[in-house]
Amino acid sequence: MGLGLCFSGGKDSALAALLADPFFDVTLVTVTFGVTDAAENARKAAAGLGLAHETIELDHAIAVEAIEQMIDDGYPRNGIQQVHESALEATAGAGFDTVSDGTRRDDRAPTVPRSFAQSLEDRHGVQYIAPLAGYGRATIDDLANELLRIETEPSEQLAKGDYEHELRSVLADEYGDGVIDEIFPEHVQSVVRGRRE
Amino acid sequence: MGLGLCFSGGKDSALAALLADPFFDVTLVTVTFGVTDAAENARKAAAGLGLAHETIELDHAIAVEAIEQMIDDGYPRNGIQQVHESALEATAGAGFDTVSDGTRRDDRAPTVPRSFAQSLEDRHGVQYIAPLAGYGRATIDDLANELLRIETEPSEQLAKGDYEHELRSVLADEYGDGVIDEIFPEHVQSVVRGRRE
Repeated sequence: MGLGLCFSGGKDSALAALLADPFFDVTLVTVTFGVTDAAENARKAAAGLGLAHETIELDHAIAVEAIEQMIDDGYPRNGIQQVHESALEATAGAGFDTVSDGTRRDDRAPTVPRSFAQSLEDRHGVQYIAPLAGYGRATIDDLANELLRIETEPSEQLAKGDYEHELRSVLADEYGDGVIDEIFPEHVQSVVRGRRE
Repeated sequence: MGLGLCFSGGKDSALAALLADPFFDVTLVTVTFGVTDAAENARKAAAGLGLAHETIELDHAIAVEAIEQMIDDGYPRNGIQQVHESALEATAGAGFDTVSDGTRRDDRAPTVPRSFAQSLEDRHGVQYIAPLAGYGRATIDDLANELLRIETEPSEQLAKGDYEHELRSVLADEYGDGVIDEIFPEHVQSVVRGRRE
């Protein structure tokens, strides 16, 4: 079965891909607003994993709407959730039998509730799987250390391919650099370089 | 990592084992009350899959308590849930690094809520994974058909190794055969014979 898995170049989506790889024909799908080199960073990570990679461009209005949500809220969670749902919708509409992502048991955002998963499946005639939905943080860290070559850096410095990277850029364009630190807490993120032999 | 996976000989726990197999050192664990040949049926299914198998005997009082719950309720769900939690507790106490089962996204019973999973992990110093927690019914059916040799039969006739098989027997001993049909709806179950080549 052909699987399109939303891929940021980070640890979670890479690990989800490796868990699915023995059983599906995996294509890593990076959605982008085309405003940074995020998709190119994700493409390099995908090449390091030896997996097929595609890019889907999302409408810029989705980024602006997500940013406005974040400004209203004062925190990024709901805006990130909106973009992730748009990414799954776009991937489901791109012709894959099965659609997937790196959401985990203990995630706060983005999440994919069962109701959204079933709605996505019904509306697009696809199947949705979340390979990490039944895995907690400690197991994911152990498997990632065993299977992946990873670099971690503070999120503002890291050249990766996730929504946050691009949304920070859109936010700075629309509201100025100073707002980024108000909305996005500083945290360490990971970028995947390849598989461990 | 050593993984102990609660195994009934049915489709779901067998498929969960195959999804985990590339990444863990899997042992299939059948909990039994020792009142039928359920554990022996599960052992044969495990042999068909080429995976290690162990049996853990649960206290008969757990079966009696579950049966009393089912009689009070008039349906089996809460009793099955109690036995499944006891099975996970017993497996977590048996020395495995990681404990697992075949619970799925769309299951009604047994389920493993995140709160129970985290409590199990904290109390026993183990990790818990549910490989099928992020998979819906259609995907599970497709993967099972691709990977497993399966027989399906009405649940009362099937020689398998799950709790229902033994709980039916305990129920009949305590309350007579007639009560079984009142508590357990007739439904088709599956038993696994091996892997597809």
